[in-house]
Amino acid sequence: MSEFSIITQYFSSLGAGGNVLLSVGDDGAALRVDNGYELIVSTDTSIAGVHFPDDLFPEDIAYKAVGAAASDLAAMGASPIGMTLAISLPQYDELWLHGFSQGLAAASGAFDLPLIGGDTTRGLLCITVTVMGQCPAGQKLLRSGARAGDLVCVSGSLGDSAFGLSMLQGKERGLDIDFEDQEFLLSRFSRPTSRISLGTRLIGQASSCIDISDGLLADAAHVADASGCKLVIDSTKLPLSDALVSSIGRERAIELALGGGEDFELLFTLSASNPLPDGCTIIGVVEAGEGVVCDLMTKRDGYDHFH
Amino acid sequence: MSEFSIITQYFSSLGAGGNVLLSVGDDGAALRVDNGYELIVSTDTSIAGVHFPDDLFPEDIAYKAVGAAASDLAAMGASPIGMTLAISLPQYDELWLHGFSQGLAAASGAFDLPLIGGDTTRGLLCITVTVMGQCPAGQKLLRSGARAGDLVCVSGSLGDSAFGLSMLQGKERGLDIDFEDQEFLLSRFSRPTSRISLGTRLIGQASSCIDISDGLLADAAHVADASGCKLVIDSTKLPLSDALVSSIGRERAIELALGGGEDFELLFTLSASNPLPDGCTIIGVVEAGEGVVCDLMTKRDGYDHFH
Repeated sequence: MSEFSIITQYFSSLGAGGNVLLSVGDDGAALRVDNGYELIVSTDTSIAGVHFPDDLFPEDIAYKAVGAAASDLAAMGASPIGMTLAISLPQYDELWLHGFSQGLAAASGAFDLPLIGGDTTRGLLCITVTVMGQCPAGQKLLRSGARAGDLVCVSGSLGDSAFGLSMLQGKERGLDIDFEDQEFLLSRFSRPTSRISLGTRLIGQASSCIDISDGLLADAAHVADASGCKLVIDSTKLPLSDALVSSIGRERAIELALGGGEDFELLFTLSASNPLPDGCTIIGVVEAGEGVVCDLMTKRDGYDHFH
Repeated sequence: MSEFSIITQYFSSLGAGGNVLLSVGDDGAALRVDNGYELIVSTDTSIAGVHFPDDLFPEDIAYKAVGAAASDLAAMGASPIGMTLAISLPQYDELWLHGFSQGLAAASGAFDLPLIGGDTTRGLLCITVTVMGQCPAGQKLLRSGARAGDLVCVSGSLGDSAFGLSMLQGKERGLDIDFEDQEFLLSRFSRPTSRISLGTRLIGQASSCIDISDGLLADAAHVADASGCKLVIDSTKLPLSDALVSSIGRERAIELALGGGEDFELLFTLSASNPLPDGCTIIGVVEAGEGVVCDLMTKRDGYDHFH
């Protein structure tokens, strides 16, 4: 079966959307960017064995690849308008492709990202998703706007995804974890929530925004660097899920919340006069200075490289 | 050296452009799509050993990857506004990256495609370029507009690229080819011309357009299918370079012009009342019917699958 047929059979049904003028099938796709808006673009590559375990379900591989890219749109405050997918596959495996297409359809729907084009090649499993969205002109959320006095906030709960990955890697077999908690924690790794609605809501509200992909402290450092100020984080305020705390205890949960990656929650700064959106938590303040400070840092050398 | 540093060191200098509002460094990039225009997007993946020989110079790998994607914009009649690059690399090789960045810079300049974002990962060499351009709303060139009576035209010369690849693969060692001709034919493979200016000029003129990546007959079949008509091609009219004909003779040159891939020239249809742009050749006519017919087909069974 040719590459073209694979694309046609599995992916071309996902191409419709409000801003899609022309989808898969010609030399390129066409999208409308609305008047008064600018185009936001981000590209993310996922590789088997690096970004996800080789044996992750194809449904989840697809969902996670799209979710990770969608999270960048959320961090800019952009409304999704479309995506392209470049996928390299070791062989034609109908069952695998069927699963992958199911996950792709689910993510396309969840994040409102019609699939408007792509490329299929032979090679080691490698997935590159390019997402496109639009923002009111000049109002996109940047990493660089945090100012002393702002509050540091995050959405959702932190650390779940890192623990979910650890479970998938078979590192947590000694633990006795409730089945529903397992499901929740695994899904936090494989089915990122990517806070698109929150991002668009933060336009005109947040002074800076980033999505948490490298880990809270590392991403906070990106905001501190870009904004030229210091982020002070209170470890006692970190939002932790009940599932995570009851599985591994509060101390290790905080470690994962600070250093674990791929939460795909939003970290943003807000002047104290702006309301805190539902589902978000204040975890610190912005001060003059540079870098990131957390009360646990003096106790734990492992975080030193984030200074 | 971290992935981020690689991107910053080598690629972030290529990010400026007239429609670039925000380049590499935040969660996403921002582009302006001008009022009255629509966004055109295309994604192309190149894999070592599949799309180019493993030992192709990194300068050429970069140039060709960008040129191939740019050619899709040309085929739509779009003006380039930016591109993202996702590259997977087996190891950190400063010399290789330096060469790659030189080719990337050359292509970015040649095709007016600022590099606005990307992702760098570890893995087998794999390059995905997503290009973005803009077209006057509703006027993009499609494969589907050819009508009986139109002329079939191509830009440049055909078959050079396929022969350049064959030389790179060491298959032509018995031939005595002039050095300048060698250089020209190799460059036709590794440095595609990607007819951006011609594409924009054909807006409002050509009734259909496609770029020749799979080979003339195969791509002509795509136009015939999309347009619901028959393309009749006269093999005696195919534009052949002097370098190709003097290297391998007219008969083999015609074979490569019909079946060889990656010319990255434009194949378009034009009503007889429209002027033929400079550097283009009329190679046939559109008739009622379906498929592609070429006078050589009756003699050569090898072309049967293009019917």
